[in-house]
Amino acid sequence: MINDDTIVALATPSGAGAIAIIRLSGKDAITMADSAFRSVKSDKSLLTQKTHTIHLGHIIDNKRTIDEVLVSVFKNPNSYTGENVVEISCHGSNYIQQEIIQLFIRKGCRTASPGEFTLRAFLNGKLDLSQAEAVADLISSDNEASHQIAMQQMRGGFSSEIAKLREELLNFASLIELELDFAEEDVEFADRGQFKDLTERITFVLKRLIDSFAVGNVIKNGIPVAIVGEPNVGKSTLLNALLNEERAIVSEIAGTTRDTIEDEISIGGIGFRFIDTAGIRETTDVVESIGIKKTFEKIDQAQVVVFLADSSNFKETSFLKSFKIEIEKIKNKYPLKPLLIVANKVDKLDEKQVDIVKAEIENIHLLSAKTGTGVEALKDKLLSFVNTGALRNNDTIVTNTRHYDSLLKAFEEIGKVKEGLEIGLSGDLMAIDIRQALYYFGEITGEITNDDLLGNIFANFCIGK
Amino acid sequence: MINDDTIVALATPSGAGAIAIIRLSGKDAITMADSAFRSVKSDKSLLTQKTHTIHLGHIIDNKRTIDEVLVSVFKNPNSYTGENVVEISCHGSNYIQQEIIQLFIRKGCRTASPGEFTLRAFLNGKLDLSQAEAVADLISSDNEASHQIAMQQMRGGFSSEIAKLREELLNFASLIELELDFAEEDVEFADRGQFKDLTERITFVLKRLIDSFAVGNVIKNGIPVAIVGEPNVGKSTLLNALLNEERAIVSEIAGTTRDTIEDEISIGGIGFRFIDTAGIRETTDVVESIGIKKTFEKIDQAQVVVFLADSSNFKETSFLKSFKIEIEKIKNKYPLKPLLIVANKVDKLDEKQVDIVKAEIENIHLLSAKTGTGVEALKDKLLSFVNTGALRNNDTIVTNTRHYDSLLKAFEEIGKVKEGLEIGLSGDLMAIDIRQALYYFGEITGEITNDDLLGNIFANFCIGK
Repeated sequence: MINDDTIVALATPSGAGAIAIIRLSGKDAITMADSAFRSVKSDKSLLTQKTHTIHLGHIIDNKRTIDEVLVSVFKNPNSYTGENVVEISCHGSNYIQQEIIQLFIRKGCRTASPGEFTLRAFLNGKLDLSQAEAVADLISSDNEASHQIAMQQMRGGFSSEIAKLREELLNFASLIELELDFAEEDVEFADRGQFKDLTERITFVLKRLIDSFAVGNVIKNGIPVAIVGEPNVGKSTLLNALLNEERAIVSEIAGTTRDTIEDEISIGGIGFRFIDTAGIRETTDVVESIGIKKTFEKIDQAQVVVFLADSSNFKETSFLKSFKIEIEKIKNKYPLKPLLIVANKVDKLDEKQVDIVKAEIENIHLLSAKTGTGVEALKDKLLSFVNTGALRNNDTIVTNTRHYDSLLKAFEEIGKVKEGLEIGLSGDLMAIDIRQALYYFGEITGEITNDDLLGNIFANFCIGK
Repeated sequence: MINDDTIVALATPSGAGAIAIIRLSGKDAITMADSAFRSVKSDKSLLTQKTHTIHLGHIIDNKRTIDEVLVSVFKNPNSYTGENVVEISCHGSNYIQQEIIQLFIRKGCRTASPGEFTLRAFLNGKLDLSQAEAVADLISSDNEASHQIAMQQMRGGFSSEIAKLREELLNFASLIELELDFAEEDVEFADRGQFKDLTERITFVLKRLIDSFAVGNVIKNGIPVAIVGEPNVGKSTLLNALLNEERAIVSEIAGTTRDTIEDEISIGGIGFRFIDTAGIRETTDVVESIGIKKTFEKIDQAQVVVFLADSSNFKETSFLKSFKIEIEKIKNKYPLKPLLIVANKVDKLDEKQVDIVKAEIENIHLLSAKTGTGVEALKDKLLSFVNTGALRNNDTIVTNTRHYDSLLKAFEEIGKVKEGLEIGLSGDLMAIDIRQALYYFGEITGEITNDDLLGNIFANFCIGK
């Protein structure tokens, strides 16, 4: 699978901006770049430059100047991929980006596949597989928690924990296999007591990692929250109010302002994905019945339900009554799903009315998205559904389904080994289980790979990384 | 207007990508970057690094690692802005971009205004004003011609032509003003014959530059082409066929594929903006009449009209007849506007039918967007409306309205100087006109500026440039 041909790709987001970076990697990256580069200093060649240096000049196609650029040179093995790498910082027009990439394709470069730079970094031993996967997680991280986990994984926190256990296990495996060579002499090189301790330690760590996946998954994918509510109860005002703080930061940095309010909101570093639904008010209208059916489908997908009403409606006794029926309906249908009953526009009620509502509806959360009353408290309630203990303790958290699967399988195999130890299973049979466990450990960090696996992993990367 | 505070901005397009560049410029850029940077090599400080070098390490906020980055150091005056500049190449997640920018804002950086890096480059004498303006043109250039002109201007082609004339004129201005000091002695330091030659040379150059604005404007803004045609005559197939070549290139570079087919198509390096209209078929229907009115409004805005029909309709004699009436109607209403009569789907006609159509309708252009027949010829016809002579001859072409205005004013003043020379105007009066002409020359290259002018120019830049 290792190619040393030279690949090229745009490494910055597509579209026009102040600058764009075009990245080349491979044996001939510097030679190819040099053949298209004319330094502002006459006769300067990229071939004789030191690694990690930057050079001002022009990209030339025959006589035609494509752009004034800065060229960064990284020499094998001191680069991201471990190969010769050149990064060309050009003016960010789409036209220029394309002209430069096309020029290098004519010079013999190949356009990089998604993640191919990182794949090469892995194949050249610059990163292990879980670190390489963390690169993609890091790029897609959009809140503090997912960023922290990806960063920890990229810096090797997860791999080193796994690698250490694997090494100890490998050591025992060797000793047990050594016993097989001396089978007739009935010796025990591997201390069964120590080995039992190790398997228990491994079991403990694996269990913790496997359990962390629940929170890891939440952090990576966000928590789906269904907002159930009729039109005009203030769903989008509420989302805006929840989003408020973050928006203030975002809008300070021009160019990063979002055009549309997305329904994913980061609260305390956790992403909450709000799913808008139409409410469940009883009706005889066929069209509206379909709406109610859809609402229930969306509630099915959610992990938390926010049932939102307009406080001012509570002034009508009939509304209050039917609202309570609707609450019961949701509770009966989803007895285990956390339900937050929220009344918006509390600013429209006087104190006495507030007291009545509180007395009538248990645990109702009153807020005003407009004035901000109760918004922070709602955030706290939403956060209380997430066990962020592991996050706070800086423990390793598993977010990757592939790792989770390998950990589960390793856990199963270690269980067999433990069982074998207890019943005094013969070394040759135990060795098989140990090897199998080692195999799954190796899958995580990439000691064990195959082309299909690598293809799957790197296909999810963006081009240029 | 000169600030030496340190500014920060995202220099790559917003959105997620493999990498993003955050740029700092100002007196404290390197100090600030160093305070947030921890090199992979212990105790390496950015403060002691050479200019144009790259350093691997982490951006740290207190104890928290925000990202693994490459930091490029450029030392005053050897940088884009002429100040100390640091470029941080980080993982391209929005979250990381924002965290790093926010970190530097907390450290005392200010977010850069649009174009502020280039403004500083201008104020520090790294670029003249027309070169600075070319930077924005270069970034927004989306075809070969506009790119070529912006590149030429950025490399100083335009400025040097103006600056040379300005210097010669300044020389004469000084001599004539010197004469004023010796007014009583009635000497002529400035040779009137040579001066007349110079004003004629200047007039000639200015005339050429002013005239080039017509083609410059076309190149910069594209040529609006109204496509008049009923639904289903194949307008979008035709646009696709015209776009075909370019699309093939675009789709080769993944990540740059356009989601929607834009109506601006580059032909021979010139942008043609196609304006879709509904046709002008006679009708009694009120709604359709409004459609016809709109079609005519769009034709008003266009510089070229393409009248498109479906060839297969020509089999009906009645259609042919009404089509000819419609042609006459357009010709009568717009006698001076170039009109291309195009019949699509010629593959549906047999040879005899083709002959009939050709005989009936003068200058009809037959094509099949589906098979490609006649598409290249249509491109040539569209290109023939543009005088690309100046482009081919690599002449300086003016594309900037501000330059155009200043050139017109300088032209007017030089005209007065010439007239003054002819009628033997006194030196003191002539000096005023010369100074005025010099003023307008200076406006172009930026020797003469004011804050309002600079504000207007750089407000159109993107942030980070």
